[in-house]
Amino acid sequence: MNLYPNFSFQIIQKSHKSEARCGLLNTPHGVVETPNFIFCGTKASIKNLTPRDFANEGTQIILANTYHLMLNGGADLMEKHGGIHKLMGWNGPILTDSGGFQVFSFGYGTVANEIKGRRDGGKNNRPSMIFKIAEEGVTFRSYVDGAKKIITPEISIETQRKIGADLILVFDECTPFHVEKDYTENSMHLSHRWGKRSFDYFVAKNDFRQALYGIVQGGVYEDLRKTSVNFVNNEDFFGIAVGGSLGQNKSQMHDITASTMSHVNRTRPVHLLGIGGFADIIHGVECGIDTFDCVHPTRIARHGCAIVRPNILNKFSKTVPLKQNNEFISLKNNIFKEFDGPIDDDCQCYTCKNFSTAYIHYLIKANENLFMSLLSIHNIHQMNKLMKSIRNDIHQHGDLQETKKAWLMDF
Amino acid sequence: MNLYPNFSFQIIQKSHKSEARCGLLNTPHGVVETPNFIFCGTKASIKNLTPRDFANEGTQIILANTYHLMLNGGADLMEKHGGIHKLMGWNGPILTDSGGFQVFSFGYGTVANEIKGRRDGGKNNRPSMIFKIAEEGVTFRSYVDGAKKIITPEISIETQRKIGADLILVFDECTPFHVEKDYTENSMHLSHRWGKRSFDYFVAKNDFRQALYGIVQGGVYEDLRKTSVNFVNNEDFFGIAVGGSLGQNKSQMHDITASTMSHVNRTRPVHLLGIGGFADIIHGVECGIDTFDCVHPTRIARHGCAIVRPNILNKFSKTVPLKQNNEFISLKNNIFKEFDGPIDDDCQCYTCKNFSTAYIHYLIKANENLFMSLLSIHNIHQMNKLMKSIRNDIHQHGDLQETKKAWLMDF
Repeated sequence: MNLYPNFSFQIIQKSHKSEARCGLLNTPHGVVETPNFIFCGTKASIKNLTPRDFANEGTQIILANTYHLMLNGGADLMEKHGGIHKLMGWNGPILTDSGGFQVFSFGYGTVANEIKGRRDGGKNNRPSMIFKIAEEGVTFRSYVDGAKKIITPEISIETQRKIGADLILVFDECTPFHVEKDYTENSMHLSHRWGKRSFDYFVAKNDFRQALYGIVQGGVYEDLRKTSVNFVNNEDFFGIAVGGSLGQNKSQMHDITASTMSHVNRTRPVHLLGIGGFADIIHGVECGIDTFDCVHPTRIARHGCAIVRPNILNKFSKTVPLKQNNEFISLKNNIFKEFDGPIDDDCQCYTCKNFSTAYIHYLIKANENLFMSLLSIHNIHQMNKLMKSIRNDIHQHGDLQETKKAWLMDF
Repeated sequence: MNLYPNFSFQIIQKSHKSEARCGLLNTPHGVVETPNFIFCGTKASIKNLTPRDFANEGTQIILANTYHLMLNGGADLMEKHGGIHKLMGWNGPILTDSGGFQVFSFGYGTVANEIKGRRDGGKNNRPSMIFKIAEEGVTFRSYVDGAKKIITPEISIETQRKIGADLILVFDECTPFHVEKDYTENSMHLSHRWGKRSFDYFVAKNDFRQALYGIVQGGVYEDLRKTSVNFVNNEDFFGIAVGGSLGQNKSQMHDITASTMSHVNRTRPVHLLGIGGFADIIHGVECGIDTFDCVHPTRIARHGCAIVRPNILNKFSKTVPLKQNNEFISLKNNIFKEFDGPIDDDCQCYTCKNFSTAYIHYLIKANENLFMSLLSIHNIHQMNKLMKSIRNDIHQHGDLQETKKAWLMDF
């Protein structure tokens, strides 16, 4: 029996130099061209933007977080009022996570650091808000009202059914950082049992509106990743998500991603959870990953930062000393007071076509929150531009050389 | 000599039952159909909205505040970078005030209360930030960096030249509240001398990009208002603004407005400063006022409130007890959790066409600032709808009966 009659994933172009591929991910709310990026609308709102704003910049798919919607009353509201699409006024595809990542992230405070390979993973540890991780599920304290709550695989899937996103995820344990291999292995097996319970509950309630992704765990251990991929391959999930810690640095992250991807069933769409750097995305695509998500583009916008390609970084760096990472600039910097032009002359986003860097700098200094909207618009446009460049490269050249030239600093 | 060759005000329809009229106010950045409402973009940004957002809801003209732009570096930035229109990405008409109202409002803390006839005018008095009011101008402390600053009529006009709005205002003293008649009279004469200096400086520097409004002061005293109107009538101002305190209550405000307006030169456009209530606008239009401004529609949006006509208020009041004033509702109220429909079924704004009241209530409760944008969009649309209804009434019926029926609670 086809569990997913209203969904399909067609691979329409394969690279001859890597595992990169272009696909069409069909959902009841429209098609996603892959590779693509999924923007975070945590509580059913992409912060400071209307759906009109992010649709105009080429967005095809967004996500919302089950954990937040459960605790803030959003899930119940959506059940009563016709689902998340209608409620938030976005009729395109939506994915929800299972709550697994966030219950542990809020619980331990540092799961996000671990996944992203930040070396200061343990430094800002918050007190645990998790009471108990048991076979049944996770008991934790709500950050909204302090109440004791539980998430089980069945509750996660039921909550995701209430929300009504197109693509949904199994419930998993996001393994804490810096644990021994045997913890990671036990945790992975727990996630598999939860994955199976998520699947069974999903099948029992399936009304064909949603498609379920399994999640690959196994931490930084190649053998565990292989075991976990086999589990996911062998269940009738619509898609495969790669979760958990991928390593302590970029190099290890890329190695683990590659070895994990070497085992996956290549007929299904594959999502890499929580990763959004240019190099990481490009490398992931070359391993065969189809979709990515990260809160980064919209979060840094709220801190006054604009995503830019290396040519823009180099342009500004020539004029003035500019503290920078490789992928964005902070417009708070006083040097931008003097820049009359847009952030990026080649950018076709609403912000770059209508506003100068000096104006955005001025808005930040004057505490006018419009800068958050303007920079979110720019950053979303840039990520969509990157993904479009990747798709064009695969279609036209079969490799990602053009994208790498334009988007990577030291290529 | 015509000081304003690039500006004109044509009266295209007069009411036969009142002094109401429809006009076309032509500026180098387009036409304003009058009567109309001017929305506040205090620091060259309508908070939480892009120009695309407020243009889509029918906005024809906005204003910015010279006082804030002077202290936040906005005026200098605009001078360097081609003016306020280019900087903020709005190519329609803009008005700037002179800084007079705000230097005194920030100084005494309560001028706004006085103008609006609030009885608690003196209660929340802040410590004065004004050092000295002298013939030369006002010395005060900057709220941005604590520096000692001065505004004189010449500095006000020069700053407004840097900003580059289409319509600009003379510098005036906004008379403090609860003062005796002789203070008000002396203050009015000071404002006249400052108005003349503003005019002389404007004429000396006139490059025909801007048109200057004189300001009528005189407080609640009909004889002083008449004297002040005569002063403004006799100078070659393009337009006339009515400023200062209009009384302690709505009734006195309407009386003072009417008696003041009975003396004005009716060939010029007339602006009523800082007034935005439905009844006050309708009454003002009947006295011959052409434009209004108030921060109210966008400010209450940021506090979770939606402007509604009486029929919407009545609809909600039937279902549940609703604490209300006559012109808006607070969507924070838990009763809105249950309302699946838009704020107003008849409203054609982006918000009402795409989002439910329940979603906006949820966003407020979840601290998702998108509610500020959505409610600002709705409130701007409603004010523009009111002004359009007034214009239609004048054109079609010659009176405002239809508008009053739709917009006033006890009509």
